[in-house]
Amino acid sequence: MDGKRDNQRAPNVVIVGGGFGGLVAARKLAHSPVRVTLIDRKNHHTFQPLLYQVATAGLSPGEIAAPIRWIVRGRNVEVLLGEVQDFDLERRMVKLSDVAIPYDYLVVAAGASHAYFGHDEWEPLAPGLKTIEDAIEIRRRVLLAFELAERFAAGGEGQVQLNFVVVGGGPTGVELAGTLAEIARRVLADEFHAIDPKRTRIILLEGGPRVLPAYPEDLSRSAEEQLRQLGVEVRTSTLVTGVEPSAVLMGTARLSAAVILWAAGVAASPLGKRLGAPVDRAGRVLVNPDLSLPGHPEVFVIGDLASLKDRNGKLLPGVAPVAIQQGKATARNIARDLSGEPRKDFHYLDKGSLATIGRAAAVAQFGQLHISGFIAWLSWLFVHIFFLIGFRNRLMVLIQWAWSYFTYERGARLITGDTQLPSWPELQGEEAKVHERAS
Amino acid sequence: MDGKRDNQRAPNVVIVGGGFGGLVAARKLAHSPVRVTLIDRKNHHTFQPLLYQVATAGLSPGEIAAPIRWIVRGRNVEVLLGEVQDFDLERRMVKLSDVAIPYDYLVVAAGASHAYFGHDEWEPLAPGLKTIEDAIEIRRRVLLAFELAERFAAGGEGQVQLNFVVVGGGPTGVELAGTLAEIARRVLADEFHAIDPKRTRIILLEGGPRVLPAYPEDLSRSAEEQLRQLGVEVRTSTLVTGVEPSAVLMGTARLSAAVILWAAGVAASPLGKRLGAPVDRAGRVLVNPDLSLPGHPEVFVIGDLASLKDRNGKLLPGVAPVAIQQGKATARNIARDLSGEPRKDFHYLDKGSLATIGRAAAVAQFGQLHISGFIAWLSWLFVHIFFLIGFRNRLMVLIQWAWSYFTYERGARLITGDTQLPSWPELQGEEAKVHERAS
Repeated sequence: MDGKRDNQRAPNVVIVGGGFGGLVAARKLAHSPVRVTLIDRKNHHTFQPLLYQVATAGLSPGEIAAPIRWIVRGRNVEVLLGEVQDFDLERRMVKLSDVAIPYDYLVVAAGASHAYFGHDEWEPLAPGLKTIEDAIEIRRRVLLAFELAERFAAGGEGQVQLNFVVVGGGPTGVELAGTLAEIARRVLADEFHAIDPKRTRIILLEGGPRVLPAYPEDLSRSAEEQLRQLGVEVRTSTLVTGVEPSAVLMGTARLSAAVILWAAGVAASPLGKRLGAPVDRAGRVLVNPDLSLPGHPEVFVIGDLASLKDRNGKLLPGVAPVAIQQGKATARNIARDLSGEPRKDFHYLDKGSLATIGRAAAVAQFGQLHISGFIAWLSWLFVHIFFLIGFRNRLMVLIQWAWSYFTYERGARLITGDTQLPSWPELQGEEAKVHERAS
Repeated sequence: MDGKRDNQRAPNVVIVGGGFGGLVAARKLAHSPVRVTLIDRKNHHTFQPLLYQVATAGLSPGEIAAPIRWIVRGRNVEVLLGEVQDFDLERRMVKLSDVAIPYDYLVVAAGASHAYFGHDEWEPLAPGLKTIEDAIEIRRRVLLAFELAERFAAGGEGQVQLNFVVVGGGPTGVELAGTLAEIARRVLADEFHAIDPKRTRIILLEGGPRVLPAYPEDLSRSAEEQLRQLGVEVRTSTLVTGVEPSAVLMGTARLSAAVILWAAGVAASPLGKRLGAPVDRAGRVLVNPDLSLPGHPEVFVIGDLASLKDRNGKLLPGVAPVAIQQGKATARNIARDLSGEPRKDFHYLDKGSLATIGRAAAVAQFGQLHISGFIAWLSWLFVHIFFLIGFRNRLMVLIQWAWSYFTYERGARLITGDTQLPSWPELQGEEAKVHERAS
């Protein structure tokens, strides 16, 4: 790299994070004369676009996640399970709790997590959806709400009103709300004796004037209409001002809720701040046009953790295609360094956007082409299955999907872990009771 | 039932436990003029014979478990999620934490759990395998052991000796040990850079003189030979006298272990003792020949919780076929009561026994016919896939199996939850170190 090094020793590239950006960078770099070390705090890559399917019991965790070690098997990539604590940019070291890993190049692709607008105390009351563990917890809460309502009703307590509240009308909030409505109205409809799952209200709260704010207005309108057809109550221009056990506050209004899901805010990984460079309001690192860290050409920041404006002056969104293209671009720039070529700036090629809403419901934008409904949903389905990692996973997911499309069954309806909802007793209050069962 | 009742009111049959026995009883009773309430503390039925596949990352939890509510859908069966605390046999009530459910007939099929020979403090150190949660925890420990060994080795610490110790040489111990050997020697062999997974030792400890003690001697010998071929060290007549974090004690001998799995003892559900009838040493209820509770013809105890000797004077084993046949027999006896016919005693029809050991390795006994190896394994495979509940599950499991048979991949290698092994630091001790990596 710098000519002085022993040419026996290939440069170390350390990649932090096994999401889309980090994984693509690692796979691309395997063709270059470097040693790659990929560090992640999980042993698996999670295909985040399908996480909502795990949260809503359509897919099993193992179908949308694959061991990072297996994905990069047979390549020049060392995988380490560990949580990065800090960086030493002077000595060029990545610090884990017990070891420090030296690097020549560092690619930080640590992603993002939920943000609660400064109210971290809301997190246990209203979980977000970023990891497999989050998805399992949401699935547990949703299924448990029906089970506990059934038990109370069977004990002669009458049917409590089950409200599921989703906070945030972006793609994650929309797909969660749409799928929950399908579960309540179709999947579980005939399996309960004492309660009627169809009475469940699914309420989507969005602070701005329309759902899917990053999409064109006509697609937002279409998405809202498709949500309503699925049975979701959409409330736009509605700001959540507080979260309590089993209730959401909006100013002076109070909405009781058996389950509250958070899809409203995103905060970049706290690792961004450890790099010492300026970050934006969401904690994203302001990177150079080649995605390198200001003052540190040997350090790159990519994916949801990077803040970069595109040619048109718009901030690049935190979506998989951006991270994937940035991972590739970074691998290429490192290869250019090694072969003495100049680096190239990163430019995002927008191939379109897809957001799913529910069964046969979606919106899609490909340049000037805006589509809605079944065709958009089919496009979404095939794009996502195509990009899912591992042939076996693709096959399994396709079978699951076909199966549940025709039967309305959801195959992964397991409640694991605790079967008590700490916040549940609230729901027994008088105000939440719908009727007494005729006994 | 007793003539005095209002014939508008069908008798309530309450079934406690949604395992094989309880589920079969519920399905059979759906054809009788009764109301059935099935209570389980999980929302899903677990296909226990394949639990070891979840523990060893071959199958996902959702593939061997199905919601009880879904299994009995469309039938005259009310399903309640809840943990039974006690019974009131006089008032004929089943008590949950918050409600009491009245019954006319009670079927207790609460199953069994692990027994640690009076040393419950060993349980967190050496988990057993009875639930989906147990299987996920075992999978976490096994995969994490390799990951942490890799991290230490990558940090220049050398390769620690990974020992996996399985305590108990019954069917569960044998299949766990055989499959762990396959994982270490084949599945993970090429995915690690700093350690060699093939150096992992899998040690199976059995207190008696042979593995699979319930099988004929020739099949025990064959099973032991097949285990050795898979790379398992089998130590028979070896009593475990203590379990420590990361070590098993056998008298004065001490065997260090990264993971310890417990497959040695079974204890019946504590609910057995709440029925007030005599129990055997393992806590199983001594039932009448028609499976009813002595003194309470309206209460039946079936499956692993029941203690009954067969015609030949042998205690019936705690296996799925016994529970299934007892569930059917109990449903028939309740139907006979209702139509005024006399009850029939239960007799077990032994159709054979199958125990799997690993890939293409198994033993089977069908009466006088004893078979081993590939044919036994194929029989085991088809019997188990055939009895797996739900067509979708059968299809998915068959695909998974075919896939991993030909590729040696295991699709469900997720570590979820905590990525720290509390007992791990023990392994860094000098004695456990194999070699220092040439750096």
